[in-house]
Amino acid sequence: MNDTYVHGYDQRENIRLQDQASTLVDLLHSDTLFPAGSRVLEAGCGVGAQTITLAKNSPEAHITSIDISAASVAEAKEKIESEGFSNVCFQQDDIFNLSFEPKSFDHIFVCFVLEHLARPAKALNCLKFFLKTAGTITVIEGDHGSSYFYPDSEAAHKAIQCQVELQKRAGGNANIGRELYPLLNAVGFSSIHVSPRMVYVDSSKPRLVEGFTKNTFTAMIEGVRGSSINAGLIDEKTFDDGIRGLYRTTETDGVFCYTFFKAIATK
Amino acid sequence: MNDTYVHGYDQRENIRLQDQASTLVDLLHSDTLFPAGSRVLEAGCGVGAQTITLAKNSPEAHITSIDISAASVAEAKEKIESEGFSNVCFQQDDIFNLSFEPKSFDHIFVCFVLEHLARPAKALNCLKFFLKTAGTITVIEGDHGSSYFYPDSEAAHKAIQCQVELQKRAGGNANIGRELYPLLNAVGFSSIHVSPRMVYVDSSKPRLVEGFTKNTFTAMIEGVRGSSINAGLIDEKTFDDGIRGLYRTTETDGVFCYTFFKAIATK
Repeated sequence: MNDTYVHGYDQRENIRLQDQASTLVDLLHSDTLFPAGSRVLEAGCGVGAQTITLAKNSPEAHITSIDISAASVAEAKEKIESEGFSNVCFQQDDIFNLSFEPKSFDHIFVCFVLEHLARPAKALNCLKFFLKTAGTITVIEGDHGSSYFYPDSEAAHKAIQCQVELQKRAGGNANIGRELYPLLNAVGFSSIHVSPRMVYVDSSKPRLVEGFTKNTFTAMIEGVRGSSINAGLIDEKTFDDGIRGLYRTTETDGVFCYTFFKAIATK
Repeated sequence: MNDTYVHGYDQRENIRLQDQASTLVDLLHSDTLFPAGSRVLEAGCGVGAQTITLAKNSPEAHITSIDISAASVAEAKEKIESEGFSNVCFQQDDIFNLSFEPKSFDHIFVCFVLEHLARPAKALNCLKFFLKTAGTITVIEGDHGSSYFYPDSEAAHKAIQCQVELQKRAGGNANIGRELYPLLNAVGFSSIHVSPRMVYVDSSKPRLVEGFTKNTFTAMIEGVRGSSINAGLIDEKTFDDGIRGLYRTTETDGVFCYTFFKAIATK
């Protein structure tokens, strides 16, 4: 889990995550609203990129945000407090070995976490133990295999595939979005509803061209240049051609598509 | 344009198109409504798969449906009349050489047509000539490159790629959906709005599993087995493995994703 691509453990990556969350916040989170008085666990909060939105959208819920990284938790806590929110408690904790009482939460929220885990089904099973009967789990993940664009570029697909392969070698799965239904089904959740959240970007949407295609997706792929070349996954020229191919999709006649998946299920 | 995959010129394909239209009708057409008294041109009506929905959704519009194939026009006419609709006129005509007066129409509707044309921008330009100033064009196309699924299958992607390659060799473009914005922009339409219509299918949606993944998409790919093998694009085993891979996505733990693109623009 120490490769440079892993979310939340690297300064540049942290900035990217912030950009991502502020650009995509409506698309992903506008329908994530927890009732007053409900107890909500955010599992894997990282540096708090999504915590801000949780706290803002559900001001009267009692949110507990945990992450395995004490440094990330500290950063998330500082961020939330500096924004003036007081409805979030933070603690360092491990999804696979949580320190709460069983059935402590009405709702669990997991965003951009399963993609990094070698045993995502086990993680969901562990979390389920802390959910009340009839409580809900909300899971949001991306899927790099959902990327396509105009003009098409074979080199760009190869560069993206480097990120997928590096994440796989670190035990994760960059294409996990499409798997949310079978994963939740396999661990016994019911009333599973998966809602794809497609980001469609053409030049009539300059904010998404900058905020998503360039500064989120392409920046993320650019970030694995060194690791990919060092690992022998690709040569420099092909990688750089791929990055140029991704930037090419941000011109006036370009189009970029990517899909996140949001699942809600009941215990 | 005579390969077996081409829509509307082959009996089995006709049936598939009917299934497709009746399964996807809400997704694609529920927001296609033309006002009373408006003159609407459906360019490339084929055997009338979409004409039924146009006539039903806009009962007081005056619809003119044309196709280059006289046989298809005759079949479409019979179908519409047998359903009791009287708001559609049919005629055999060529998109590149239409027989109407300039600016004859308030709205133009083009669905699953551009994918078959070697010069889609020219077609749009020809159509524009017959649209009144401030009239709208609605264009709907699929994009085979938008297909992905769980479990993933390399053979399935190869089988899909055969369809893409055959369509390309016939002068078409099976991945044209993502290009609608640049195409409409290039021929001078304004206020272009592209709305992706993603078909997400998991086993909680048995109607889509049958109606879309099996009977529309996989049936279409199965339909090019002979042509693909004859053209030397793939070997029998890989193709058949690919089809099995597509059926595999229709099991309880499978997921299938495909995106249509619907564009509306103004002259």
